[in-house]
Amino acid sequence: MSHTNTLTDTLTNTLIGTAVGETPADLLIRNVRLVNVLSGEIHPAHIAVKDGCVIGFEEYEARTVVDARHRYCVPGLIDGHIHIESTLLSPARFARIAAQHGTAAVICDPHEIANVMGTAGLEYMLAASEHLPLSVFMMMPSCVPATHMESSGAVLTHEHVHDFLTRYPQRILGLAEVMNYPGVLFRNPEVLAKLNAAQGRVIDGHAPLLHGKDLNAYIIAGPASDHESSTVEEAREKLRKGMHLMVREGSQEHNLLDLLQTVNEFNSHRASFVCDDRLVNDLVNHGHMDDILRKAMATGLAPMRAVQMATINTARYFGLHRRGALAPGYRADMVLLDDLQSFTIADCYLAGRRVEECDFSSSVHFSENTMRVANLDKDALRVPAQAGKLRVIGIMPGQIITEHQLLEPALREGEAVADAGRDLAKLAVFERHNARGNVGLGFVTGLGLRAGALAGTVAHDSHNLIVGGMDDEDMLTAAREVVRIGGGLAVAHAGKVLASLPLPIAGLMSDAPVEEVLAGLQSINAALATLGYKLGSPFAALSFLALPVIPSLKLTDMGLVDVQRFAMVGLWAE
Amino acid sequence: MSHTNTLTDTLTNTLIGTAVGETPADLLIRNVRLVNVLSGEIHPAHIAVKDGCVIGFEEYEARTVVDARHRYCVPGLIDGHIHIESTLLSPARFARIAAQHGTAAVICDPHEIANVMGTAGLEYMLAASEHLPLSVFMMMPSCVPATHMESSGAVLTHEHVHDFLTRYPQRILGLAEVMNYPGVLFRNPEVLAKLNAAQGRVIDGHAPLLHGKDLNAYIIAGPASDHESSTVEEAREKLRKGMHLMVREGSQEHNLLDLLQTVNEFNSHRASFVCDDRLVNDLVNHGHMDDILRKAMATGLAPMRAVQMATINTARYFGLHRRGALAPGYRADMVLLDDLQSFTIADCYLAGRRVEECDFSSSVHFSENTMRVANLDKDALRVPAQAGKLRVIGIMPGQIITEHQLLEPALREGEAVADAGRDLAKLAVFERHNARGNVGLGFVTGLGLRAGALAGTVAHDSHNLIVGGMDDEDMLTAAREVVRIGGGLAVAHAGKVLASLPLPIAGLMSDAPVEEVLAGLQSINAALATLGYKLGSPFAALSFLALPVIPSLKLTDMGLVDVQRFAMVGLWAE
Repeated sequence: MSHTNTLTDTLTNTLIGTAVGETPADLLIRNVRLVNVLSGEIHPAHIAVKDGCVIGFEEYEARTVVDARHRYCVPGLIDGHIHIESTLLSPARFARIAAQHGTAAVICDPHEIANVMGTAGLEYMLAASEHLPLSVFMMMPSCVPATHMESSGAVLTHEHVHDFLTRYPQRILGLAEVMNYPGVLFRNPEVLAKLNAAQGRVIDGHAPLLHGKDLNAYIIAGPASDHESSTVEEAREKLRKGMHLMVREGSQEHNLLDLLQTVNEFNSHRASFVCDDRLVNDLVNHGHMDDILRKAMATGLAPMRAVQMATINTARYFGLHRRGALAPGYRADMVLLDDLQSFTIADCYLAGRRVEECDFSSSVHFSENTMRVANLDKDALRVPAQAGKLRVIGIMPGQIITEHQLLEPALREGEAVADAGRDLAKLAVFERHNARGNVGLGFVTGLGLRAGALAGTVAHDSHNLIVGGMDDEDMLTAAREVVRIGGGLAVAHAGKVLASLPLPIAGLMSDAPVEEVLAGLQSINAALATLGYKLGSPFAALSFLALPVIPSLKLTDMGLVDVQRFAMVGLWAE
Repeated sequence: MSHTNTLTDTLTNTLIGTAVGETPADLLIRNVRLVNVLSGEIHPAHIAVKDGCVIGFEEYEARTVVDARHRYCVPGLIDGHIHIESTLLSPARFARIAAQHGTAAVICDPHEIANVMGTAGLEYMLAASEHLPLSVFMMMPSCVPATHMESSGAVLTHEHVHDFLTRYPQRILGLAEVMNYPGVLFRNPEVLAKLNAAQGRVIDGHAPLLHGKDLNAYIIAGPASDHESSTVEEAREKLRKGMHLMVREGSQEHNLLDLLQTVNEFNSHRASFVCDDRLVNDLVNHGHMDDILRKAMATGLAPMRAVQMATINTARYFGLHRRGALAPGYRADMVLLDDLQSFTIADCYLAGRRVEECDFSSSVHFSENTMRVANLDKDALRVPAQAGKLRVIGIMPGQIITEHQLLEPALREGEAVADAGRDLAKLAVFERHNARGNVGLGFVTGLGLRAGALAGTVAHDSHNLIVGGMDDEDMLTAAREVVRIGGGLAVAHAGKVLASLPLPIAGLMSDAPVEEVLAGLQSINAALATLGYKLGSPFAALSFLALPVIPSLKLTDMGLVDVQRFAMVGLWAE
C-alpha cells in the first residue's frame, strides 16, 4: 500500500482530537445522501472535515457549516489511466478542468513526453503537477522508444525505471502499460529487467487481442491490468485470469458499451473506468470521468457499481491509501450532486476545499524548445521517380489502422508528386529531437485535401514532425511554422500560414488558457475545412500515420514500415 | 503489497517458458468446474501447475495428469484471524488438520504465547511454521501485557513491533488486533508508537461496541478491520466507516448469522470469514473454514460470495500477492469438491501437491519449561477470616462475562473456605512465568464441583496458573501436576490426580499427535464430570476468570479486579 500520510502527521494535525470532539472541525457538510462505496449503501450523513481529511458522519462543531440540502455526495473520481499530453493541456490546465468535473486524482502515464524528452520530461510532469489540488500520480513509461524503426527523443532503460520508482515512491506507483508483449513472451532481457525493477509495485498491462497461453505467460510476468480489451470475450478471459479490467472510454477509443457486459455483481470490484486519451474539447464540452459515469449509468449499470468503478476500485487496485471513498481518515475529495443518475454536479471539494477556491496555478513553466530539425528544405521532400508502383498509406476513416496500397505514381519532372485528383498527398516525417536530419517520405490517401498542407508534432509514439500536403512549398511553410512556434500544429496554403496552434511544451502541450487552446484548435479545423480536409480532428489522421505498432503501413523518420512484417520497406514496390 | 516471489524466481522456475508451451507443466488437473473468484463465474477449465504456481486453464502437456471429472475447484481457503494457541496444537499439528479441511493459509496472532514468552514465543511460532506446506502468516501482537493488573511473562514495546516488522517483512503482515482502544482515544504515547511502527502495513482492529465519534478516532489512528461486531448495527457502522468486516465464527464466539445480514452485493468484497479461536475437537469433528462456509451457505449466502469471503477478499485485505484465487501466477492451492453447496471436499492441493503427500513435520521442537511457580503450598491458599462479605465471581454459563456477587463466607478454623453446598469454590491464580510468588485468591460460584479441583495454564491473557476447587489439598495436587507436566490441565480429587493434559509448549500447546490431545481432553472432561462440573469444556470457565478486560469481577495473580472500575479490589467487602 502506498501511504501518503503517517500517523505522526495525523497526530500533529490533531485529527484524533477533532474526531473525539475536543477541537472543532474545519468544515461540516450537513445533510448529504452519502453514496458510500465502502458499505454499498446510500445513507444520510453529515461529513466533518479537518486538515483535508474526513473525520466522521456525526454532528461536529465546525468553523464552516454547509447545508447540502440532501444532495448526493460521492467520493472524488479517479482516472486510472490517462495520458495528460493527449489533452494538449499542461498538467495544471488539465487539472483545473478535470477537477470542475469531479475528478480528484489521476494516474497518468507520461509516455508521450518521455518519448520526446526522456527523464527530463518525467521530471517536468512531476514538478508541474506536484502541488496541484488534484492529485496526479504517475506510472513509469515502459516502452521508450516504442520500436527500433523510429527515432525518439530519448531511451528509457530498466535503470531509469528503478531510479524513478526508488526516488518517487509516493508519486510513481509502478510500471506503465507494458506494450511490448512480444518482448515478454520472448523474455527479452531488458524488458524483463524493467518488470523486475517494478516488482512489488503496480504493473499495468497493454495487450490487445493477446489470449490463451501467451496471455498466461504475459500475466505471470507481472502485468496486472489491461485497458485494451475490445470484445466481451477478450475482457472475460482477462478477468478470469486475474487482470484488473480497465474499461476505457476515451476520445478515440470507445469500449464501454461492449465491456460492461462482462461486469457482474461478483467481479465489479475488479473493474475501473479509465479514459486513456481525452482531447481538450471533449474535456470542456462533455467532461471527464463524470461523462463516462453518465454513459455507464445510461446503459443500466447500477449507480453504486458505476461510482465504485470510478473511485474505490481504482484506488484499491493502485494501493492508494485512504482515497476513493469517504470515511474517517480518507482524503475529503467530495462531489455533491443534484441528481445521481444524470450525475449533475452541484459542487466539488478537493481535500475539503471548494474547487472554486483551490489554487491551480503552477510555478513550474516549460522553457525548453524541443524543435531540433535539420534538412527542412525543398530537397528533403524530393521523391525521384523509379520503376514500379508506390506503396501508399490508405487512411481508413475513424480507425488508426491503415491500408497498404500500391498505386501508380503521379510524375512531374522526374519526381513522384502529390495528386489532388486522386486524393494522393505527399507525407514526410522529419526527425525533430536531435537534428539527426532523418526524413521519411511517402504518400497517403484519404486526407481529402484539395491543396495546402498540414504539419504537426503530435505523432505517436516518437512525436517527430509529420507533414502531409498537396504541395511541397506549402508542406515546408506549415512545417517551418510548427518549428517557429516551438511545436504544435499548422496549416498552410499558397505559401501562407492559414492557422497554427502552438504546443510549446515538448510539442505536445500548451500552458495557455484553455479558451486559447480551443480557439487555436478551431482555427486549425476551419482552415483545414477550406482545403477540403474531411477527417474532422487534425489528430484523427496525422497523429497515427507515424505509429509503427499499428497495422498496416506507416511512415517514420526512417521510412516506410510494413507493420505486419514489422520491418522497413521501400517506397517503390517492384 | 507483500510479494512472495520475484520475477527472477519465476524466471528461474521457467514459469513463462512453461506458460508458452516450451516446457511441460508438473501437473494438469483436467475438467474442473472452476469457482473463479476473480471473474465471479463458475466455468469449465483445466488447471496447469508448474513449480507450485498456476500456469493457465488450457490443455498443457504435464508430467502428471488428473481427471477431476467435473468436480468443483475452489482456491485454498484463508483464515484471516486465528490464535493457533487456542487450538491446543503446535503450528505443525494444526496445519495438517486445517489443510485436510481445505485451508491453505492463515493469518495468526500469536498473542497468547507472546504473553507467556514475549519475543522468544514469536520466534518459536515463526520457526515452527516456516517450512509448512500451509502458509502461516502472522500479525505482531499489540497488547502484551493486556493490562497492568496482571503479571504476564513478557512485555512487547513499540521497538519490538518495529524490529519484527522490519526483520520479517514477508511473514509478519502488520499489527495484530489493537485491543487497547482507550489507549488510542487518549493518545497513549506507547500505543501510538506501536501504531506508528506499523504504518504502511496492515493494522487489525478489535473494538467491541465502539461507535460514533470514538470509532472515528480509532479508525483514523490506523486499525482497518474489526472482528468483534456482534450486532447488525455495529457491523454496518464499521463497514460504512471503512473497516474490513471480519465475520467471526469460532468455538466460543458465533457472529455469522447476525453479521451476514449486513453483507450485500456492493460490499461483500470488503468482508472475510475468520475463526479467531477454534478448539482442537471442533477442528477434528467439524473442520475449519470449510465448516464456516457450510454454515454461511446454509443461511442462503451465494456460494460465490461465501467462497470469496474465505479466499480472495482476505488475500486482498492483507495484500497477499497472488493468493486467494486460481489464475496464472497464483499459488496453486486448490480444493476439489464433490458438491459446492455442502462443501464436500474430495481432495486438497497446496502449491500443487496433494495434501496427503505434503510433509507437515517440523524440525523445530519446543524444549523450554515455562512453568516457574513459587509459593505452591498450603499457606499460599489460606484466606484469613475478616469482617464483612466476600466478593465472589459469579460464572454465567455460556458467557465469558461474570457477575460480581457479595456472599457470606464459609468459615472454618478462622479461614474462609470453599462451600460445596453453595457451589462456592476457592479460586487461586499463581504467577507462573518468573516465580514472582504472586498468588491471587478469591472465590467463584457456578463451577458445579461437588469436590476436587481443576488447574490449568490456559488463562487469558497472561496465562498464569489458575486453580479452582473445593479442597485446598486437591487444588495443590492439581496445580503441582500441571507444573510437573510443564503446563496444561489437571483434575485432582482426594489427593490423587484423576486426569491431566500436558500442554508443554508454553503451557498452551501440544506437539503430540492430535488423537493423544483429544484423548487427554476427553479424560479431563470425564474426570470433571465425576466431580459434578457442569460447564462442558474446562476452558469455558477457568480460561476467562483471569481475563481482566471482560466484566465484571475477575481474579489475576495480583488479586481481584473490578473490571467496571478497571481497578483492584479487596476480597472482603465492608
